[in-house]
Amino acid sequence: MSDLDTKARELDSADELAPLRDRFVLDETVYLDGNSLGALPANVPDRLADVIRRQWGELRIRSWEESGWWTAPERIGDRIAPLVGAAPGQIVVGDSTSVNVFKALVAAVRMARADDGDRTGDGVRAGDDVGTGEGVRAGDDVGTDEGVRAGEGAGGTRGRDEILVDATTFPTDGYIARSAARMTGCTLRPVAPAEVPGALSARTAAVLLNHVDYRTGRLHDLPSLTAAVHAAGAYAVWDLCHSAGALPVGVDEHGVDLAVGCTYKYLNGGPGSPAYLYVRRELQDRFDSPLPGWTSHAEPFGMRPDFEPAPGALRGRVGTPDILSMLALEAALEVWDGVPVEAVRAKSLALTDFFLECVGAYVPDGRLTSLTPVSHEERGSQVALRCADAGEVMKRLIERGVVGDFRHPDVLRFGFTPLYVGFADVERAARVLAEVLG
Amino acid sequence: MSDLDTKARELDSADELAPLRDRFVLDETVYLDGNSLGALPANVPDRLADVIRRQWGELRIRSWEESGWWTAPERIGDRIAPLVGAAPGQIVVGDSTSVNVFKALVAAVRMARADDGDRTGDGVRAGDDVGTGEGVRAGDDVGTDEGVRAGEGAGGTRGRDEILVDATTFPTDGYIARSAARMTGCTLRPVAPAEVPGALSARTAAVLLNHVDYRTGRLHDLPSLTAAVHAAGAYAVWDLCHSAGALPVGVDEHGVDLAVGCTYKYLNGGPGSPAYLYVRRELQDRFDSPLPGWTSHAEPFGMRPDFEPAPGALRGRVGTPDILSMLALEAALEVWDGVPVEAVRAKSLALTDFFLECVGAYVPDGRLTSLTPVSHEERGSQVALRCADAGEVMKRLIERGVVGDFRHPDVLRFGFTPLYVGFADVERAARVLAEVLG
Repeated sequence: MSDLDTKARELDSADELAPLRDRFVLDETVYLDGNSLGALPANVPDRLADVIRRQWGELRIRSWEESGWWTAPERIGDRIAPLVGAAPGQIVVGDSTSVNVFKALVAAVRMARADDGDRTGDGVRAGDDVGTGEGVRAGDDVGTDEGVRAGEGAGGTRGRDEILVDATTFPTDGYIARSAARMTGCTLRPVAPAEVPGALSARTAAVLLNHVDYRTGRLHDLPSLTAAVHAAGAYAVWDLCHSAGALPVGVDEHGVDLAVGCTYKYLNGGPGSPAYLYVRRELQDRFDSPLPGWTSHAEPFGMRPDFEPAPGALRGRVGTPDILSMLALEAALEVWDGVPVEAVRAKSLALTDFFLECVGAYVPDGRLTSLTPVSHEERGSQVALRCADAGEVMKRLIERGVVGDFRHPDVLRFGFTPLYVGFADVERAARVLAEVLG
Repeated sequence: MSDLDTKARELDSADELAPLRDRFVLDETVYLDGNSLGALPANVPDRLADVIRRQWGELRIRSWEESGWWTAPERIGDRIAPLVGAAPGQIVVGDSTSVNVFKALVAAVRMARADDGDRTGDGVRAGDDVGTGEGVRAGDDVGTDEGVRAGEGAGGTRGRDEILVDATTFPTDGYIARSAARMTGCTLRPVAPAEVPGALSARTAAVLLNHVDYRTGRLHDLPSLTAAVHAAGAYAVWDLCHSAGALPVGVDEHGVDLAVGCTYKYLNGGPGSPAYLYVRRELQDRFDSPLPGWTSHAEPFGMRPDFEPAPGALRGRVGTPDILSMLALEAALEVWDGVPVEAVRAKSLALTDFFLECVGAYVPDGRLTSLTPVSHEERGSQVALRCADAGEVMKRLIERGVVGDFRHPDVLRFGFTPLYVGFADVERAARVLAEVLG
């Protein structure tokens, strides 16, 4: 038995979170892809069977009320809230991450412009449809009209017409940000997160950032970047897909304006489970969604032709909630009962440290380059290793029972979910990786 | 035994679709709310158990490929296609109806403007982001810029700056249409469907219509309204929520441009199951989605910063597909194997005819007014009855095992799903209704 093997056993023995593994359905595989699709929580199958057979099959339509279907988006949002450091009443679950990025960014631009309108007192930007009745084809928000005129005239104030987006983002955020920019008459400017402070200006309306980089696992400095965005009078939208459930986020504490995230990675909600949207309490009255569906109406069953947004986070809802997926997620979130995120973070860092240690010991020099920051302050819960022929290497790892994933063109990505990954798993993964490379 | 009771038995005996009831989980309840939430197909529970325990629990991430998760949106779209008269390759499943209305309407406006650009040869409207780099804050599409200038100048052509929406629509379509109008610089004009032909003009970019009215059950004339919209150079977007699965739609045959629908009513996909989007084949290359997510990219795993839309209907996809709900829907659609929509339509009309006959016979004159058209050409698969104290009446019906629903302020709504509702159910529902009213 190697030293590292012994160390792994010791670390596992001392791991207070180790028993949580029993809350999941797992086998002999070393599953290091929970940052792509979390493992199945053991309570989900029976819960879903009940939802399908009894709630849908027997109660049918009555379940919207009697089984709490109607309120699921906000109820499950409140279950996610403590995991990202949010007080209740600020998160709704529903739609995909992409759709929520669109809601959040457009709403952020509208708030930024409304602020400027408030400051200058011109009020011209506030209304919907203003100008359109007068033969002016305005774009989104009346600011467009003003912006065009200003652009045509000399010396006019440009207002807030720029969205900054993390240049290293998972692509969907960039695609959606481009659409949000196009539809609000903004330009989109990709900027590396570290360079955001220098790129902010009086033109910046909103900034879309990833908390943890999907490829490298780098953790960005959410508190200081949010503060910088605010100092420029802009709004910060954070994508928490790769941080929620792996480390403390502190959205309330750090003044995050809007945030989105998926629930199928570290939250284990199941394939394509619904995403969530956080709208800071102070901003909820001003959250003006580009997707105002009937379930975000103040009186959804009034069937009224005019839209009046529901109070609070509920205005982040859109259409009929997707109940099967949503209630699978609700069950999945119960694995967090009594689990402090801080303990998860401590174990996560210990796991990634130990993986890097084992890889260093087992893999010959020069075969791998770690893209993952050494500093804990800059590390999420994954390790990304650059490697020649990475696609083939990952295939062989998977054949030998170590599951990570491959990110084009040359990255091996290993995610460490502290709820169910142990130190012996980590040692084995590094050992098999060395064998595959050797 | 009354004459109508005898007639019901005869009709049931002659009903070739009667055996389909065994494909559902049902009890003694007369369930006339399948136009809100379809009953549970009997094969769904075991299918979902397999999806959860084996595909997610054992195969985990491998299921995206091995279990066909990745291609589910288009595969299930192709299952819906014959039910609405579409050839394969034109429907994708995903998101909510509301979100799909947004995609379809914005894309329709863009196509209408591109047509005008093509006709005048100015090309100015075609590009994304044009002008924004030059300090012009354009709204959606560059047409905005031109539109504003035209509005400011004298005698300029206004272009297509109007969206017509069914004034009697289920509210969410109206709310979303208002947002689409706002974000594309259009005005939104609510018009009763019958008045659409007279309201069309060279300003009309897109028209959003319901095939069947959610409240009255009135069936609108899709072929002639679509033709009228086309004659005006505009695009027709149809909401099929209350028709798909109840009657033939013929989207291909009648030249529908874009269509959306939910799957939890007559398609029995389960509570809040994913909606679908139809994009006519000839328009797919021009379908320019306002929600371009990573799964609608031509090379989704290339992780490229620039968006290049996938070919075909796939560009209607957005984020990661919601697998649990989607595969429940896939199982649910198997109940349609070997079932011609024409036979379903014939039975649907027989059911609603018989219900009206029984209500006429059992309920004293003056207690109810039918909002449902007498003519078959104008009738969907539901009967709406106006009634004093309708909310209370529906409560008592439900207590007595007849489930319909109540629509504010005074409508009793009864949906007839030919796959599992029989003529004896209909007779009993009318009899209990008469008792409650008596």
